[in-house]
Amino acid sequence: MDIPVEVAARFSEGTLVAAIAQDVTNGEVLMMAWMNEDALQQTLATGNVTYWSRSRNQLWTKGEGSGHTQKLISASYDCDGDALLLQVEQTGAACHTGERSCFFREIEVTE
Amino acid sequence: MDIPVEVAARFSEGTLVAAIAQDVTNGEVLMMAWMNEDALQQTLATGNVTYWSRSRNQLWTKGEGSGHTQKLISASYDCDGDALLLQVEQTGAACHTGERSCFFREIEVTE
Repeated sequence: MDIPVEVAARFSEGTLVAAIAQDVTNGEVLMMAWMNEDALQQTLATGNVTYWSRSRNQLWTKGEGSGHTQKLISASYDCDGDALLLQVEQTGAACHTGERSCFFREIEVTE
Repeated sequence: MDIPVEVAARFSEGTLVAAIAQDVTNGEVLMMAWMNEDALQQTLATGNVTYWSRSRNQLWTKGEGSGHTQKLISASYDCDGDALLLQVEQTGAACHTGERSCFFREIEVTE
């Protein structure tokens, strides 16, 4: 459960890392939020995905209030160590709006 | 091809927006990079995904040098307007390392 050096380097710089949660059952991208070192450590130690809330300035275990938890199945990190991809089992809605995914609104794209 | 107000508000604050590219053919998350308003406008206008390079401080049309382009198929934005999810047709590798996805390294997760 060691944090990879590339990701640890970001935390050492004081950078938050983007964490993308993907539904392990169907590949749907559910949300993107932020992690600091404590959030990632806690996620890896407990298996319950925990983010860093930039607005509340505190750790935020997903589903703590709502019951809409994310169970961590697997995790990977990108080539420059500033983004994580989490495969999760999502209980209920990932979005606080009640939508399954936070990405529920389309931008019009011209063919 | 208007930029949604929630996303435009982020650009007005001077915030870059995270853009997650997902392979439209199989749901694989390929990479995460950043967009400013010009990058998003250019992406929507041309259909060729264009990011903002924070290291080079300039627009960066994916595949410009390598030929590993991303054709935009559809786009959505998240509930707080600070992240975009792009469905793309990826030519070749998304990652500069030659890997298909930038998320090619796993973090050990204890069951």
